Amino acid sequence: MFSIKSVFSGHQANDFRLAINKKIANKTKPIGALGQLEMLAEHLAMIQSVGCEQYCQQININQPTAVVFAGDHGIAKQNVSIAPSDVTRQMVLNFLHGGAAINCFCRTNNVELVVVDAGITVPLTKEECLLSSNFVEQRLGAGTNDISQSAAMSTQQVEQGLMLGKALVEKLVADGCNTLLIGEMGIANTSAASAIYMALSGNDVDDCVGQGTGISAEQLADKKRLISQAVTRAKTSVDELTPLNVLAQLAGFEIVQMVGAMLGAAQAGMTIIVDGFIVTSAALVAEKINSHVKDYLVFSHQSDEKAHRAMLNYFQATPLLSLGLRLGEGTGAALALPLLRASASFYNDMASFESAGVVV
Amino acid sequence: MFSIKSVFSGHQANDFRLAINKKIANKTKPIGALGQLEMLAEHLAMIQSVGCEQYCQQININQPTAVVFAGDHGIAKQNVSIAPSDVTRQMVLNFLHGGAAINCFCRTNNVELVVVDAGITVPLTKEECLLSSNFVEQRLGAGTNDISQSAAMSTQQVEQGLMLGKALVEKLVADGCNTLLIGEMGIANTSAASAIYMALSGNDVDDCVGQGTGISAEQLADKKRLISQAVTRAKTSVDELTPLNVLAQLAGFEIVQMVGAMLGAAQAGMTIIVDGFIVTSAALVAEKINSHVKDYLVFSHQSDEKAHRAMLNYFQATPLLSLGLRLGEGTGAALALPLLRASASFYNDMASFESAGVVV
Repeated sequence: MFSIKSVFSGHQANDFRLAINKKIANKTKPIGALGQLEMLAEHLAMIQSVGCEQYCQQININQPTAVVFAGDHGIAKQNVSIAPSDVTRQMVLNFLHGGAAINCFCRTNNVELVVVDAGITVPLTKEECLLSSNFVEQRLGAGTNDISQSAAMSTQQVEQGLMLGKALVEKLVADGCNTLLIGEMGIANTSAASAIYMALSGNDVDDCVGQGTGISAEQLADKKRLISQAVTRAKTSVDELTPLNVLAQLAGFEIVQMVGAMLGAAQAGMTIIVDGFIVTSAALVAEKINSHVKDYLVFSHQSDEKAHRAMLNYFQATPLLSLGLRLGEGTGAALALPLLRASASFYNDMASFESAGVVV
Repeated sequence: MFSIKSVFSGHQANDFRLAINKKIANKTKPIGALGQLEMLAEHLAMIQSVGCEQYCQQININQPTAVVFAGDHGIAKQNVSIAPSDVTRQMVLNFLHGGAAINCFCRTNNVELVVVDAGITVPLTKEECLLSSNFVEQRLGAGTNDISQSAAMSTQQVEQGLMLGKALVEKLVADGCNTLLIGEMGIANTSAASAIYMALSGNDVDDCVGQGTGISAEQLADKKRLISQAVTRAKTSVDELTPLNVLAQLAGFEIVQMVGAMLGAAQAGMTIIVDGFIVTSAALVAEKINSHVKDYLVFSHQSDEKAHRAMLNYFQATPLLSLGLRLGEGTGAALALPLLRASASFYNDMASFESAGVVV
């Protein structure tokens, strides 16, 4: 279903890496003095070397596009979030009116924004759909089932969602985009993300569940109980917790489509900028489906959610930013984009010791 | 000499702060969900409220300009750095040719760049001075004296340097700039910065001296010995280690001018983006001269130099970025600028709950 090339173990990968590192080492600065930006430049150059005869000598960041997938969650009825499900739809409208944080950051950082209804409870009206040309309606349903009680969705819905996510990305690629920022909106989707992480990691519920956007201690205790219940139920509902079963049992429509988008983007050789906790949970599932996808992921932000750090450790990732964000929407990814541009800029344009006549 | 208004304790400051926080709290996101960016927006709005009738309702970041002050250091002869003093001049030329990291990051992030010869060993030729219209020659001498042996400069040079730094900033303000990024270039200037920090803090040499851009363990031991010697010498050379005496005894020409630039910028009500270790040492001295200057400082980057964290603790500052940079040039400040723009953007343009019709 997904054919993804390895970035780091292809037959020329080692030669490419040496050449890229040599190019970076010759820049007019002490070795390693640009810290994480040097590792980022190497990573971007490696991604853009895949399938090429030569290593990438010019990193391109073309039409970076943030895709925000929105979906609703049956478990929201159980009071696991600070806000009711209605807010998902209200925020989608806010995105289309240009008034949300992700709109501001996309404008500031010159990022295109696409908003996807992957399955919110009440679809937008025809008039509302026309608010922005960048709205895409590809609904898998009217919100998922409550995962503490039953499977979130059917495996058919999962397969459809993966294809829809992939198809959307292929359209962006056809339009010239090579850098995908992934964000999400969905009241209660930290519950789905925590359940996915718990099912995949086998960790204790206390290590998997956090306060989301800011619930009370009492709500947190309830959330833990419900997520434990969901994971136990999921395990007994299927013979094996394959990645597709994890999605069907525990995910959200937006999470499924994000998994498809990531796999499709990696297949297309794009750089994928991962936002926070929920997007990272999608990355975990994507990686279980095809492990090469991780080669294309740039982790933008360490969120406040405690399980996020554990997930990042799994990916051996050090995110570019750590600003205490707990908003989602792709905001961390949009804020990190200038660092990718800066990395590309020094890789592409900074003088070498020879060209600048600097003798150390 | 410098008259700087307090940002946080003016008679209306508390009212302004309440109004600013209310504006931020009404944005369409959970309270506090933008983490450090919310604190940054509050800070920028408070700076831009100083002297106004009303609190700042629109944060403006106008003509952000990175000023890179370059100077040479007599102590470089003692092998305390990875590179010889000649490299300072070569890097100044690299800046003027547009080939250094700071050039790349300024281009990427739309920041103006001004390069100042505050006192490198060999001045640029007339032809070299014409390489860029943004080159300013305001030399205090041909590099400082070796601080392990004698005072870096005279108090007259210090006073002249403070005035030159201030005058330069006043020119930028007259041209419409309200956001100043401060950077530096000077082989061996981590030695001066460490000596300043040691003299002002009274801390042990091991807490004040680090590896700079990457010296060997043997060089580090020498560097510590020489800096201890410099600080001991300074203490016995003057009756009292006033801020001006600290500068005369231990600083560099670029550091003195940075102190003047910061004080002048704060007096003009500018936002000042502080780069790494060396710029922060200048901020320490500036704060001893006039404590209100600290209200205008935004710390961009946690550098790899260990004493930098201690200095940041003194300022109770959490820098915006932590990317393992150890380059200087103002690179951390230039990389952080998009986060200031993002903060301003959400403060200025993000919808309120009322305007977006979001009901939580």
